[in-house]
Amino acid sequence: MRQSHLFTKTRREAPKDEVAKNAELLIRAGYIHKEMAGVYSYLPLGLRTLNKIIGIIREEMDAIGGQEVHLTALQDRKAWEATHRWGDDVVDNWFKTKLKNGQDVGLAFTHEEPLTQLMRDHLRSFRDLPVSVYQFQTKFRNEERAKSGIIRGREFLMKDMYSFDADERAHQEFYEKVKGAYARIFERVGLGDATFLTFASGGSFSRYSHEFQTITDAGEDTIYVDKIKKIAVNKEVLTDEVLKDVGIVRSDLAEKKAVEVGNIFSLGTRFSEALGLNYKDAEGKSKPVIMGSYGIGPGRVMGTIAEIRSDDKGLVWPESVAPFAVHLIALYDESGRVKQTADEAYAALRRKGIEVLYDDRDVSAGEKFSDADLIGIPMRYVLSARTIGQASIESKDRRTGEAGMLPISRIASSL
Amino acid sequence: MRQSHLFTKTRREAPKDEVAKNAELLIRAGYIHKEMAGVYSYLPLGLRTLNKIIGIIREEMDAIGGQEVHLTALQDRKAWEATHRWGDDVVDNWFKTKLKNGQDVGLAFTHEEPLTQLMRDHLRSFRDLPVSVYQFQTKFRNEERAKSGIIRGREFLMKDMYSFDADERAHQEFYEKVKGAYARIFERVGLGDATFLTFASGGSFSRYSHEFQTITDAGEDTIYVDKIKKIAVNKEVLTDEVLKDVGIVRSDLAEKKAVEVGNIFSLGTRFSEALGLNYKDAEGKSKPVIMGSYGIGPGRVMGTIAEIRSDDKGLVWPESVAPFAVHLIALYDESGRVKQTADEAYAALRRKGIEVLYDDRDVSAGEKFSDADLIGIPMRYVLSARTIGQASIESKDRRTGEAGMLPISRIASSL
Repeated sequence: MRQSHLFTKTRREAPKDEVAKNAELLIRAGYIHKEMAGVYSYLPLGLRTLNKIIGIIREEMDAIGGQEVHLTALQDRKAWEATHRWGDDVVDNWFKTKLKNGQDVGLAFTHEEPLTQLMRDHLRSFRDLPVSVYQFQTKFRNEERAKSGIIRGREFLMKDMYSFDADERAHQEFYEKVKGAYARIFERVGLGDATFLTFASGGSFSRYSHEFQTITDAGEDTIYVDKIKKIAVNKEVLTDEVLKDVGIVRSDLAEKKAVEVGNIFSLGTRFSEALGLNYKDAEGKSKPVIMGSYGIGPGRVMGTIAEIRSDDKGLVWPESVAPFAVHLIALYDESGRVKQTADEAYAALRRKGIEVLYDDRDVSAGEKFSDADLIGIPMRYVLSARTIGQASIESKDRRTGEAGMLPISRIASSL
Repeated sequence: MRQSHLFTKTRREAPKDEVAKNAELLIRAGYIHKEMAGVYSYLPLGLRTLNKIIGIIREEMDAIGGQEVHLTALQDRKAWEATHRWGDDVVDNWFKTKLKNGQDVGLAFTHEEPLTQLMRDHLRSFRDLPVSVYQFQTKFRNEERAKSGIIRGREFLMKDMYSFDADERAHQEFYEKVKGAYARIFERVGLGDATFLTFASGGSFSRYSHEFQTITDAGEDTIYVDKIKKIAVNKEVLTDEVLKDVGIVRSDLAEKKAVEVGNIFSLGTRFSEALGLNYKDAEGKSKPVIMGSYGIGPGRVMGTIAEIRSDDKGLVWPESVAPFAVHLIALYDESGRVKQTADEAYAALRRKGIEVLYDDRDVSAGEKFSDADLIGIPMRYVLSARTIGQASIESKDRRTGEAGMLPISRIASSL
């Protein structure tokens, strides 16, 4: 994409009321726009990165057999009354509104209820199980405070997967598959090193749930990490009994702030019993379906990457989620030779299928470089009268700062 | 995809309260699920078709230089007060809710206001223009009645594009480009023959707006069509003066019911003046930006296709939007030979990158055929002991009913 065509501008300052580093950087770089506290729109660069994260999550959900659906935000109160989650005293972050006829509707903060209800039309026998279903859907949560940028919003995209199994053994098997898929996702988006499988409180149906917690001071959770064993325990369940059960010792643990980038949870028959989602087993006996839920917020993942992969100059995206692979910067000379060579290089890179942001703007070299640092595309290629004199292009790695010269003829094949 | 894995089941009857043919067919075939009147979830088959439609629209929006963004549903009342659209007396289909602190927020039924406001951060000079921005975003409209299935919903996906130009001439140029792009979209999704560019009422800034109206009895609009000239006039502007202006004569017109599948609208400076979106011209003078808006509802398009491309057996998708290109049906024999051959054919088709729904279920031939008719995939391939005896597969075109035999060895290359 030509940067002269990109409508967003970088800016020196984020809005005064913005307190989260991730949102501050992403707003300044033109990735997102703040509509109100906890409500952010995605601009072209931001949407590209968000879609890369979504793409990685989708691949991993498909790989374990997930079927993609898209449920609605508007939800009838009835299903939520059946599970006792309609009341504002039980769920304190509902957004509710009304139809013209006065009927109450809620803006779904999660989708266990509607999906369980929906599945009654499709699951009947043990032969229809196992099933796992996922979606990328906007959730609405009426947070009292929303000060974490896109890490915790009032409106945000969520990948939520739900599993349906005939028995506990099958459920556990799938649960372990999701653990693996989630570990691969965080690895692929560049959060692997900082992310720990964390034991957290379970529910009526399992002793623990599992969180994937990424260490950063921007986090709202406190976890205790065993770096050698690569596991952690959430503060909420830190007892001697749990440590013994999990097989770690207190002296090996470091206290860390962390962001919960993913969670997996056994639901047992809580929703299937309340909403009547049953199946017939091989003997024709009706039994409630065993369920699990598995969440990742792609926007939260993006915000967490912005927190931990950035420096004082701006964002530093991993290749897998960068809006473009290459930032091609032309420092025009009066002869027009640089422009011509840069146009050719841009065309050559695109022919190779490489995603390029081409800074063809008529602004100073200083502005181009500082914008490039802020936007944080992993590889920068600079063409100027000087580099062209050497039939070369200057390359610079945004993360390591490593620079070098590359023959122009080899640009496209170098990546 | 193996049909034994697909969790949705077809059904004989739609819910009793469903009155729209499109929703009735789509529910029975397992494409969508009704949450409440005017609120439908998309199941795997439905989401695949919706995504095909979205993909076609996106390609055409990108081709005319559109930049994709994603704005939020939750919107602060302030921007809407500035344009006098917050009041329920002015806009009668608002859904509104409140933050915990009591602040009113609206669920956007359109996005002129937030986008105009957002653009103030990015557009400054005539050099920044023209710009066109689009999104696929969920709209919420509190319709009194919602009886048209996914053609008119209370919650629905909308592709809305907005253009920003320095002057009227540049605006008109882009407006004409969108007309072309829209015509290509409706052609590509299989609605070309039935869809007419229709003159409708304009606003303060232009005499007409333009609608793309698809003729079907399911439509809520009445239009007058000149089939030879391939244009129409909406009933709301049918006067002798307009007919003369448009260059058609009353006697050539046929009255038709139609669905408005797209609309394009000149907004002039209505929003830029109210919200202060100005640019500096070449002389440094501040001027309001000229805007236009351009909408297509992908779900409405899908519903309209379901209305006009279906028969008494079910849906009949055009290839471009079908959830799969081929429905491979195996009628198993006891020897296991059909199963083996069908598995191989499935693998061969997939290697070629062909999207196949493979009916590997253990149900009767009759059930497989009637499900296939209902689901409406364009090409059906049937393998049975009989066809295998002739080293062949039976092909059948869902639309024309044309059938034939094809050597098994040539399956993958035949498409």
